[in-house]
Formats: sequence, structure tokens, C-alpha cells
Amino acid sequence: MKLLIIGGVAGGASAATRARRLSEDAHIVLFERGPDVSFANCGLPYYLGGEIAERDKLLVVTPERLRTRFDLDVRARTSVEAIDREGKKVRVRDLASGREYEESYDKLILAPGAAPLRPPLPGIDLPGIFTLRNLQDMDRIKARMDQGVRQAVVIGAGFIGLELVENFVRQGISTTVVEMQDQVLPPFDKEMTTPLARELAGKGVSLLLGHSAEAFEQGPGGLTVRLKSGQRLPAQLVVLGVGVRPENKLAVEAGLEVGPRGGIRVDDHLQTSDPDIYAVGDAIEVKDFVTGEPTQVPLAGPANRQGRLAADHIFGRAVRYRGTQGTAIVRVFGQTAALTGASEKVLKRAKRAYRKVYVHPTHHAGYYPGAEAMTLKLLFDPESGRVLGAQAVGGAGVDKRIDVLAVAIQAGMTVFDLEEMELAYSPQYGSAKDPINMAGFVAAGLLRGDHPQVDVEAILVVPRGTPPVLVDVRTPQEYASGHIPGAVNIPVDDLRSRLGELPRDREIALYCQVGQRGYLATRILLQKGFSAVNIGGGCKTYELFQPELADR
Amino acid sequence: MKLLIIGGVAGGASAATRARRLSEDAHIVLFERGPDVSFANCGLPYYLGGEIAERDKLLVVTPERLRTRFDLDVRARTSVEAIDREGKKVRVRDLASGREYEESYDKLILAPGAAPLRPPLPGIDLPGIFTLRNLQDMDRIKARMDQGVRQAVVIGAGFIGLELVENFVRQGISTTVVEMQDQVLPPFDKEMTTPLARELAGKGVSLLLGHSAEAFEQGPGGLTVRLKSGQRLPAQLVVLGVGVRPENKLAVEAGLEVGPRGGIRVDDHLQTSDPDIYAVGDAIEVKDFVTGEPTQVPLAGPANRQGRLAADHIFGRAVRYRGTQGTAIVRVFGQTAALTGASEKVLKRAKRAYRKVYVHPTHHAGYYPGAEAMTLKLLFDPESGRVLGAQAVGGAGVDKRIDVLAVAIQAGMTVFDLEEMELAYSPQYGSAKDPINMAGFVAAGLLRGDHPQVDVEAILVVPRGTPPVLVDVRTPQEYASGHIPGAVNIPVDDLRSRLGELPRDREIALYCQVGQRGYLATRILLQKGFSAVNIGGGCKTYELFQPELADR
Repeated sequence: MKLLIIGGVAGGASAATRARRLSEDAHIVLFERGPDVSFANCGLPYYLGGEIAERDKLLVVTPERLRTRFDLDVRARTSVEAIDREGKKVRVRDLASGREYEESYDKLILAPGAAPLRPPLPGIDLPGIFTLRNLQDMDRIKARMDQGVRQAVVIGAGFIGLELVENFVRQGISTTVVEMQDQVLPPFDKEMTTPLARELAGKGVSLLLGHSAEAFEQGPGGLTVRLKSGQRLPAQLVVLGVGVRPENKLAVEAGLEVGPRGGIRVDDHLQTSDPDIYAVGDAIEVKDFVTGEPTQVPLAGPANRQGRLAADHIFGRAVRYRGTQGTAIVRVFGQTAALTGASEKVLKRAKRAYRKVYVHPTHHAGYYPGAEAMTLKLLFDPESGRVLGAQAVGGAGVDKRIDVLAVAIQAGMTVFDLEEMELAYSPQYGSAKDPINMAGFVAAGLLRGDHPQVDVEAILVVPRGTPPVLVDVRTPQEYASGHIPGAVNIPVDDLRSRLGELPRDREIALYCQVGQRGYLATRILLQKGFSAVNIGGGCKTYELFQPELADR
Repeated sequence: MKLLIIGGVAGGASAATRARRLSEDAHIVLFERGPDVSFANCGLPYYLGGEIAERDKLLVVTPERLRTRFDLDVRARTSVEAIDREGKKVRVRDLASGREYEESYDKLILAPGAAPLRPPLPGIDLPGIFTLRNLQDMDRIKARMDQGVRQAVVIGAGFIGLELVENFVRQGISTTVVEMQDQVLPPFDKEMTTPLARELAGKGVSLLLGHSAEAFEQGPGGLTVRLKSGQRLPAQLVVLGVGVRPENKLAVEAGLEVGPRGGIRVDDHLQTSDPDIYAVGDAIEVKDFVTGEPTQVPLAGPANRQGRLAADHIFGRAVRYRGTQGTAIVRVFGQTAALTGASEKVLKRAKRAYRKVYVHPTHHAGYYPGAEAMTLKLLFDPESGRVLGAQAVGGAGVDKRIDVLAVAIQAGMTVFDLEEMELAYSPQYGSAKDPINMAGFVAAGLLRGDHPQVDVEAILVVPRGTPPVLVDVRTPQEYASGHIPGAVNIPVDDLRSRLGELPRDREIALYCQVGQRGYLATRILLQKGFSAVNIGGGCKTYELFQPELADR
């Protein structure tokens, strides 16, 4: 067996080492265009910020290690220029010497990754404008920083963009983020990014949402980023983080199928339209595990997994790639944001029915010092209760809850299963009723009909018929500090004795701070014959949509 | 509906508030012998240590709050003395006034909890010897501490015992732990507690394993704890943490069925042998979710859940308690230990077939600063691969991995599912191959036959036939710093060129530091026609069983 692998970072390196473990006799060649294999691309921003002090830490495995330990034929600084599918060989170019040669294969794995987009704007190629994909990009940005950067502009508020922002600020650089969409982190639902925008502002970051760059200009004091709005941003450093596109050139030229957004098409064995050619990692189109639709998810975990599975299949194992959930996480200064499965916008786009709940628990028991707040959004099927997606933002413990929900999605579990989950509790780590259980209770209560809920969005629009009567069931002090416009205040503890103040011929929408008192109030009214709903997630959820409560 | 609930802490309070949400019209009486309802029993040790500074924080809900918000008829300092099942009434005693009266019921929920054991030893009732169940116990211990305690003895190294130790040490008290078994935290498998014993010793705690108290004596300088070994331990404070027994007196006297260890028997609706009487919490016998066998698990999470379910069933919901996994966690100074599902000793006792693996990953990517080490033990079915149990000990991230595995057990997932799990990765929170994935790879490799493994225990016993050749595949430096007795050193990177040194007619047992290089070495040898196995989890696992490597 002669196996060629094109691309030596996450998916390629995983495929190569797995292949070796499966076969001592195979000839395995790993081609990598750059000088490094298997480096820690997720660590690059933290070297720039200084948290990762040693550059060598980012070299997870060296070519030398792959040679000695795994007996791999590693060819770094080597580019594969073309695939001859008929002849089952590739044309190779040694980038140092310029020498070209051919290499035959029995099986070929494409793991070329994805390249950062560079929009064709005037001035885009000026010095000082960078993308960040590999250690060489990082070194170039570092060199620029070492020359002294007072102001940086990051174009794009995605995962890498926000990680760069944090690290630039850490280095004392005044940083502006320009994002075309009206939110940071576009994979998240917009309201879940409200706390992140607040966090960025609190750290002095200038966040320009709904803006885009039009041109870049070089002046005596450095660069100027010109926005479509006409605004001009001075900067000594610009980094583009506006997305990536699959490196599909080889595949396209070889006539392999690619999807509409450029991802190389593979089946669930990770075979391309040519069964002797596999493709893995950021370059491929995968199946969304929840919606079943094709998608492109440039994440390290799935890339590694795919590399391993492609090698397994090549060496005769009956394996199947189950699709990608898109579980991802990012730290934004003191906040953590994570998601798994489908977002609300993905479900809407897929025209998939769903319901949602929000809870606002602390990450461990409130009676123990140091409890940090989080907001957890859960999306689920309105019939079966199956968990479809989850997003969380907050302090400690966000990662844990999203991981638990990632497993729930993988297992096809429902919100009723979340009620039952028996998670580790002692006061430092959780609560007797964990945030996951709480989300399960609220969602299951909704589906069982015990807990009718209305989404905040429905309160924000002008209704067609008679609007519901809004009742704030918090204390007068809480009410006075800011409430939903038009709401009257009847604290939950007084509700039973003040039923006479409420109409029996109109819907009553109740709310409290996070939803719990509103739930009890809803139960009281329902049982007393009123038409009542709870505004899901209370004021805390309202404020995600409308950061300022009225009448404060 | 008139519902009486006996016991107002976790299960009882949950049942009462749930019942109210289901019925505004029910008359719900909550009897509690003590002055407090729904207090944070898991927080008591941390008030003693000073981490929880305000006593009021421990009062999660006051009787007054239950009255005003939930319209509950709360009767604190009130004891239920007897149940008249025929007459469907209970005899009640107001502890303040001594007044006795009867209260009828339609349904009754028993939530009396469990009482700390007080072994009938000479001197057990001397002043200065305490148990810790409620705020009053805590106040008494606090008062003793305020008088000045230099030396404390904690009898029993279970969860509460170790939490007390940590908090006594925090207050500068020289603390000795006396534990009858040969390990701390008996619910864990012994080897997994090795790092905890080391941690305790490192914090200056004197740990006497395999010891038990025989008598307590009062001298002029304080108490003396006399051990069966003859040792005498001076102390001004002794706390007993040797286990609890279900408060089953009422149930037994009423003729309700109890199990052999005293737990009140319930069916999966939490009904006792009298269908009008339910029982929940620490007083009941539950079904072990994994083994299906009856067990007693005094944990807050399940108690809350049971209380909720009992109320659901009383008010006509079709619910079923699925049994308890026993997920639990404890912090021991800088270490965290957690478990879920069945331990190895439980599986042995249940004569259930299993295999196991150990992994020793860091909690997040190693290239990012602050990665903390953990050891994760995974138990699974040797045929199906179904996850049966897990234990972890280490620094940050232990809670997350045990929660993920708790969900896997609940969902009936296998080690093959762990390979696929898509968990949140960025360098602060995880790795592209999470510890969970790693455990899945190792376990699945074992079951698929790709990765033959031998348990460390098999290496520690003298084999019947020819012993395997032990090969240490680490570097010469690692080998020199300590290795398994009798092992020869062939670094994995040299193995391919030194195959001639190995016998083809004997089994070769390989190992490295954590198992990864040993795995590659095993693959190389197997494919070259040798009989090879990897010693699961390498030296790090060996050291759990044999804390000192030979030839160091």
C-alpha cells in the first residue's frame, strides 16, 4: 500500500499516524507546503498576546518526530501541483529546489485545509495587512507588533477575530473590530452575543457592527482603513478574519466533486467522487449532524477525527463519519461563549420546527463563594423534545454545560432526559439542580403544557389582536430599577391575594428576573382559571434582545 | 388533596414546592423536626473552614418563604411520631410546646433523611465528639473550634470526612484522619485514591488507613482517641464521618418494607409498600442504574429529583424513577475526585464482566499555559463496549469529564461513542482530542483487538507460567529515573531497528509513561509477528498501584 497524504496539519497528520499504527508496511508520504506539520493553529493568537511565551510550544509534532517515531516519509516545503487520477499519480514540486517529480499512489488523502479570505479591496496588499493561518503568518504579525503598534483594526468578529482582539488588547494596543453583520460571532444567535459585545466594550474595544471595509490606504503615520460608512480608522496593523475558503484547487482540477460553497464532497467514508481519493478537514463539505444538510465546519476536532477515520477505511475498517455538530468555544476576555448543534438561525433556514428556552443559572451553588453567572439557551424539537442545539455564554462552567449538551445531541436525548441527568454536585462544581437540569425542567414543562411560555420576541413586536397584560412579579424594588414597558407590578408573593386586579378575558404574560417566579405565578393563575403565560427567561432574556430595560 | 410531607430539607422541600406548582388547592403540610428547612447541607464544612463566611447563606429557603411564596403549611420543630395507615393519619408532636395532635392525609411523603452513625464505643458521648448533619451540629463544632482547637481527629475518610479535614487544616488545626479501610473515599477504587492520599500528606494531614477507634477518653488536656492498634491520638475535637443510616423508624413501625441495610423500599414511582405513602431521599433504597441492584445513595441531587417525581406521581403524572448512578464529586485541597456509575469493586461484587482503561491527559491543550493533569479510569462492558462507570482524579476539568461520562452512562452509550464525541475545544478548555476521546480510543482499540492491553495488576502478581518480557519504551532518561522492576529499555523510536533483541516465543509486555508510546510499540511488534501487549496506562497507572517505582 502506498498512501499519499496532502497536507500535514490536523487531519493530514492524524491520518498519517493512524495509518502507520494500522500498517507497518505501508509507504506513507506526507506532503506539506509549509515548513511545519501538526502545529497548534488554535494557539497562534495567544503567542501574539504573550500568554504562550515559547514559539516551540506551538510545534505539536516536528517532521523529524514523524519520521523517527512513525516511519513516515515527511516532505515539508513541498507542494502537490496536480493529481493524475487515471495514472494514479501526483505531480510534486519541492519548493526549496524547484525540482518537480511524480509520485504514484494506491490511495490519496487530501487534507489541504482552508485559506483565509482576502477580499479584493483597494489596498488589500499593502504591508501591515495580514491574515493568520500558520506560524509564518504569526511571525509576520509579531514582527509588525515589535515595530510598535498603537492601533490595530481587526476585520471580522468571528472566533479568530475576537481571539486576536483579546491578545492585541493584552499587548496594550488600541483595537477596533469591524464586522459586517450586526453581531459578533456569527455562528451564534444574535441575542446570545449581547454579553460579549458588552464585555468587549468594557475592555475598551471599539466594536463597529454592521460595518465593512471599503479600502485600505497607506499614509505617513501608517494605514488607514476606510469603511463603507465613510469612517476612516488609523492603524499600524490590520488583520483580516472574515472567513476561510476550502483549498479545493487540486480537487477541482482533478475533476472531483465540490459543493456550492467550495467544500470537497465526500461520502460518509470520507471518500470523494473518486473512491481512491479521500478528503478530510477544513477543505471538505460535511453533513450537519442535526439538520442533515451539507455544511462547512473548519474545526480542529472534526478534522482530526476525519483523518483517523479515512485511514481506518483505507485499511479495511468498516467506519462511517457521523457528521459534524459544530461544537465550538471561545474565550472573550472574562467571558466564555460556546455552542453545539444547530443555532436558531440554522433551524429557521432549514425550516425545522423548534422551541427554545433560556435559563440564567450560576455555575455552582450560590451559597458557595465565587459562583459565576451564565446564560444557557436550549433549542429542541417541539414534538419529541429532542435536543437540537445549545448555546451558552458566561463565566466558569460554560464549557462543561455545552459538552454535556453535545453528548445529549449525539445520543439523541430529549429535554426529558435532561431533567434526569445526574451530574456531579458539590458546592465548588455544580448545584443539586444543575443548570442542565434547570434547562430540562423549563423545556419539559413547556412541552408538557405545565408551563406555557412566550418568547421575548413576541413581546417585542406589536401583536395583531389585543396585546397581553404584562405583569412583573418581582419585588417593587426590582420593578423600580427597570422593567418591560407597560408592565404592572404584582409581586409573586402577593399574587394569590390580588387576583381580583387581573382580567379573566385577556391573556396575561408574566415575568420575573430569570423565569422562576414567573413560572410559579403562571401556575397560580392557570389553576385559578386565568389565561397565563410566562415570558421565557424573564428580564435577563429580555435584556439580551433589548439591552436597556425601560423606565429604569 | 391533603398531602403531608415528613422532612423539609432536600427531597421534602422539593416535593412540597413541586406539589404546590401542580395544585393550588391542595393542603400541603411540611413537617420538619429541626428549625430549618431546605438548608445547604453540602456547605456546612465550608462554613467551619471560613470559606462561607455568612451562616445565613446556608439557609437556601426559610420556612417563611415557603409559607408566603408557596402557600405551604410549614411546621418546623415538629416531629411526626407515628403513622396510622389504617386511619390515614399521623401523630404529631410540637417540640417546643410538647403538644401532640393528629393530622390526617390523603397522601404521605416520607423524606426523613439519614442520620450519621455513632458507633457504640466507650466514651462516644464525651463532649467534643461530634457528627455533622445540620446547622445545629455545625454550630456546636464551630463553638468548640472557637474555644481553641489545636488537634482534631476525623474518624472516617469519606466525602464529609475529607471535606472536614480540608476545612480544619484551613483553620490551622493539626488534623488526623482515621479510616478503617485501606483507602480514602471508599466509593472509589483504591488505586484512584493514591493521588488523594498523597495530597493529604502534602498538606500535613496525618492519614491512618486500616485503623479504627476503640475508645475515647477525657483527660486534662482534652480528648484522647484510642485506636485498636493501641495508638493514642490527642485531640480537642473529634468528628465522626463513618457513614449514615436511613431514618426508617417511622416506616418500620408502620410496617412498611425496608431493605437489608435499612433503606425504605420503594417502587419506581417512589411508592412504599403502602401506595398512599411515598418515600424519597437518603432514607430510601434505590436501584443502581448500572447494576440494577438495590443500593443506598445519600446524595442531594437524586433526593431533589425523587421529591419532584413523588409529587408528580401523586398529582397523576406518569413518571418513573430510573435509578441512581451515584455521580459524586469532592474537592480535597488542590485535587478533585469524581465518579459516576459502577466502580470496579461494585462490578466485581455484582459479578459483572468488565474491562477498564486508564488515561492520564491534561485538562486542556498542553501548549497553552496552566494545563492540569488528571487520571481518568473508564469501566465498560467487554462485549458491547457500553460504559459502566468512570472515575477521575486531578486538577481542573475533572468535573466536566465525569459529567460527560454520566450522560454517556444515562444514554447507554459505548466506548465507540466516546471516540466520536465532539466536545468544545479551544486551548483554555480542552484539546482537539479531548480526554474523553482519548479514553474512547484506548478502550475501543482494546475491544477491536487493535490494542491488546494487560492490566497493571496482572504485572504485579507472579504469573503461573513464563512471565512476559517487560519492555520500557520510554527514553533512557525516563527509564533511569525509575521503571517497573525487571524491565529492559528499548525506546520506541529505536524499536524498529532493534527487533532482533526481542524473543518471538514469549509474550512481550510494553509500557511507557501513560500508554501512548506503548500502544505504538505494541502495534509495531504485533505487525512484525511478535506476541505483544501494552500495559494499560503505563507507569502513571503502575504508580497508582505501587506508589514507588523500583530502581529510581
